Amino acid sequence: MHVLTSLFRTAATTMILLVPGAGWAQSAPPMSIQEQGSFAAGGTVTTVPGTFDPRRPLSAAGQTFHGDHLYAFYQIPTNRRRYPIVMWHGAGQFSKTWETTPDGREGFQTIFLRRRYATYLIDQPRRGNAGRSAVQTMITPTADEQFLFGAFRVGIWPDYFAGVQFDRGPDTLNQYFRAMTPNTGPFDGTLFSDAAAALLRRIGPSILMTHSQSGELGWLTVIKSDQVRAVVAFEPSGGFIFPEGAVPPPVATSLDTVTGVPAPLSDFMALTRVPIYIVFGDNIPVAPTDVPTQDAWRGRLEMARLWRDAINRHGGKATLVHLPEAGIRGNTHFPFSDLNNIRIADLVSQFLAETGLD
Amino acid sequence: MHVLTSLFRTAATTMILLVPGAGWAQSAPPMSIQEQGSFAAGGTVTTVPGTFDPRRPLSAAGQTFHGDHLYAFYQIPTNRRRYPIVMWHGAGQFSKTWETTPDGREGFQTIFLRRRYATYLIDQPRRGNAGRSAVQTMITPTADEQFLFGAFRVGIWPDYFAGVQFDRGPDTLNQYFRAMTPNTGPFDGTLFSDAAAALLRRIGPSILMTHSQSGELGWLTVIKSDQVRAVVAFEPSGGFIFPEGAVPPPVATSLDTVTGVPAPLSDFMALTRVPIYIVFGDNIPVAPTDVPTQDAWRGRLEMARLWRDAINRHGGKATLVHLPEAGIRGNTHFPFSDLNNIRIADLVSQFLAETGLD
Repeated sequence: MHVLTSLFRTAATTMILLVPGAGWAQSAPPMSIQEQGSFAAGGTVTTVPGTFDPRRPLSAAGQTFHGDHLYAFYQIPTNRRRYPIVMWHGAGQFSKTWETTPDGREGFQTIFLRRRYATYLIDQPRRGNAGRSAVQTMITPTADEQFLFGAFRVGIWPDYFAGVQFDRGPDTLNQYFRAMTPNTGPFDGTLFSDAAAALLRRIGPSILMTHSQSGELGWLTVIKSDQVRAVVAFEPSGGFIFPEGAVPPPVATSLDTVTGVPAPLSDFMALTRVPIYIVFGDNIPVAPTDVPTQDAWRGRLEMARLWRDAINRHGGKATLVHLPEAGIRGNTHFPFSDLNNIRIADLVSQFLAETGLD
Repeated sequence: MHVLTSLFRTAATTMILLVPGAGWAQSAPPMSIQEQGSFAAGGTVTTVPGTFDPRRPLSAAGQTFHGDHLYAFYQIPTNRRRYPIVMWHGAGQFSKTWETTPDGREGFQTIFLRRRYATYLIDQPRRGNAGRSAVQTMITPTADEQFLFGAFRVGIWPDYFAGVQFDRGPDTLNQYFRAMTPNTGPFDGTLFSDAAAALLRRIGPSILMTHSQSGELGWLTVIKSDQVRAVVAFEPSGGFIFPEGAVPPPVATSLDTVTGVPAPLSDFMALTRVPIYIVFGDNIPVAPTDVPTQDAWRGRLEMARLWRDAINRHGGKATLVHLPEAGIRGNTHFPFSDLNNIRIADLVSQFLAETGLD
């Protein structure tokens, strides 16, 4: 059944896309959804001293500001599996990361809904629909898309990597670059993981799925919440936590220096108690290179492997899949939305089945 | 059948809410969704002069910035009706306006999906998930929630209006105040309606549903796009367009002055060619008052009536329902998410049936 299902989905994804939202999925079966909706979790409340005067309503005295929460949109399929998947975007991204792919195919939100997982797609505090930041911030538009084309390992502008799992149609890059939204407040790992822990207190034990910058936020959440049953981390990009005194030397790259983060041993040990599945894609150089968007990933993959080893030395259950070494080629920084994302979803489903979390 | 359906839905909404996201809707039938997803529409591209150097990727030379688009999340039910409903939030809001209500019930996104309408929930450019603004902007957190409690006509802080259609549970106001997100760029009616027109070019003829500030953006969209089949406008708050030379005198209130907007007659006439259904709620004073959050609505309802009359004098088909005059009491500025929102949805369904758009 599993092989047939994969074949069906592969066939579905090779259908020619006409216009997104105009019916490419008509031959895919309908999804049966029991419940869907959205809510805020976590956050703070600030109160301005004084007494509110309804006749002077634009004066801040006595007024409140609820902010710094995360926003979650959830869908629960009929006949749901036990644990929901919480999908957490990375830097510069928002829930769209998991939604329709840039070239118009179903993303992990819909793929895993079809696989009977409840899904919770979040915007972290101070991003996207959770933009109500409690800290004043200047947002400056930055022309950075050719940098991102490289940082996301689609290629090295203006060239795509040969065999890259990324569509080259004219609207694809347009959608890709518009699937971003700025920070509306400063980065704050404690605040963000506090909000995630609040979400988990509300929805119960869950599988956490992270990407890039939220990899580190995922580790923080595992440490502070006992509701994380597993972590699936796509290309975690930093914040690798090691026991104090056992942090490996920093790894220098031509973009930046990748450093481990020391933490009390008891915090680190929390990360050994949940199954962790880390996925890295293709086109990550083995040798140092002066192309910073390439070299950054050499350093990160190296540190991720050191981290996986430290976790497992302490009795943990971390697996790191470097996709080309598993025979899966061409993946970018976004394997879950690449052309072969069904195959990637199958790897995740297999991991969840093997750990008994499906 | 219609009456029975309404009774069923009313019964469903009187069920006691336990924990949102934990199954209140379990006795509601599942929803069958053929397709869902998201994409960006409209927007601009800026290119920095020069040549991009992959070895200096943080230098802006030769890089692009795609921004100022809108973001849309859509769902298409099986056996869909002909026209989708595009739901457009108001000032300070985002797609959440139409999602789960502050007290955890289904919002119009799900209600109309159950009624077999495809739904497109948008975040307008420079808001929420469409935050990638091309204009630098300072975002300043403002303690304004007691002002909004009044402006949204929940009550006059700290008192709720007697009989107001708004839940008084402890988490409801918390969710309500967190269902907001700031502008990431300046307001620009032309830019925003251009993006909406781009959306409509992609998805085809649609019913436009607006709220408050997007009322005016809806009128602009009708003028520039021939794809709007009807407008359902909840408490449009300004930007009422009149023919040049026929703008009524401004209406002064204790909050501000409500002014009509002159436009070429040919633009105005576009607004006479689609059915328009305007809904205003309760607790709008008849006489001037020195409570600005109240008086603002006296002025807006007055101007909206003048506008409806002007539209109809020119052969249009505008209806304005002032809910308490129709025997429906207690509605706030957000009738579509109030406690009686099923009844409000029934009014919309009736309008769409009467205009043959269902």
